[in-house]
Amino acid sequence: MKIEAYSQEEYLEQLKAFHGSMAPGLIIGGAMVNLAMKTLPKDKLYDAICETPLCLPDAIQLLTPCTIGNGWLTVLNFGRFAITLYDKYSGVGVRVYLDSAKLKKYPEVYSWYFKLKSKPEQDFQLLISQIMGAEEQILSLQHVRVQPESLRRKKIGPVADCPECGECYPVRDGLSCKACQGESPYLEVEASEMMNKNHNLAGDKAA
Amino acid sequence: MKIEAYSQEEYLEQLKAFHGSMAPGLIIGGAMVNLAMKTLPKDKLYDAICETPLCLPDAIQLLTPCTIGNGWLTVLNFGRFAITLYDKYSGVGVRVYLDSAKLKKYPEVYSWYFKLKSKPEQDFQLLISQIMGAEEQILSLQHVRVQPESLRRKKIGPVADCPECGECYPVRDGLSCKACQGESPYLEVEASEMMNKNHNLAGDKAA
Repeated sequence: MKIEAYSQEEYLEQLKAFHGSMAPGLIIGGAMVNLAMKTLPKDKLYDAICETPLCLPDAIQLLTPCTIGNGWLTVLNFGRFAITLYDKYSGVGVRVYLDSAKLKKYPEVYSWYFKLKSKPEQDFQLLISQIMGAEEQILSLQHVRVQPESLRRKKIGPVADCPECGECYPVRDGLSCKACQGESPYLEVEASEMMNKNHNLAGDKAA
Repeated sequence: MKIEAYSQEEYLEQLKAFHGSMAPGLIIGGAMVNLAMKTLPKDKLYDAICETPLCLPDAIQLLTPCTIGNGWLTVLNFGRFAITLYDKYSGVGVRVYLDSAKLKKYPEVYSWYFKLKSKPEQDFQLLISQIMGAEEQILSLQHVRVQPESLRRKKIGPVADCPECGECYPVRDGLSCKACQGESPYLEVEASEMMNKNHNLAGDKAA
């Protein structure tokens, strides 16, 4: 099986290097991207939707031009094991999902996906070999249309220094940045240090 | 300049391959990850925070083990150009941010960051060369502590087939999946097709 530009072995190596492990969901993700890409015309630019943040976004990021940072990948928190690739102008595309009904022929995949076994009870090698044997036979495909503007990342707009932390932030967020409005994830922040190549000076600013 | 495991040239190539372009923000991102990593002890596992979804998450994904799919990277929509790497158990870490005050010495970077010039007015080569020349001299660093549990991805919990679309979803989301509850991004969905290796049969399910 070829997975986009990679042989299966190359894809598994890429997975380990990028994702940190050979997650079963990412091997399925490879087959999902393959199926979507071979269904779509070759000469267009596609944006991607991933309907779960678990594992699957990394298959899209490895195998398509769509990443979180470039904004061509939208991750939705539906917990459905599904991806969509769609024409970034017309919104027309294909959605590929893991089809529960088809999983029954692959009992180790079924019990993994529906969490019927604890991790130590799982037979990892059997799971991987059933996934690789199944390829796209556990997937189904739908033709879909999205409204591309609704998913396109909004422009950041004018920016200014936040009067509280002094860092640059998007003015649309209000009179101060969202972190200073109370959404900061930091319990403690020590005064910043001026970093220079050869020496650190005491900081002049706290956020 | 070495950027983690890469030479500068290799990093720029990786950027183009993964992100699709040599975004100025990602070159700064390389220096940010470098500065964070050299400040932190070597023998720990770090999770990452990125305070903007624009560009910067891709530097983290390329240069650290943290990705969206493996859950070690949390992207916050603060619009601040900052990253944090923190010990995934203690929450202790460092935050590196682009320091507006230090940017004034690098006028092309300053005017790019504060959007003082339109794209055609920018001198892209000068911008890139000022960023590369500045390295970490436009950055500042803070020592921070986060509560790791508050950022750790929640376990998905029990799953079941959604009574509306028939796909597997997390039961915690309610009586049906979030897409069927009205959050679907799809304007149109055509009945799914059963995909097999050699033939497509008419679908038996619509979502």
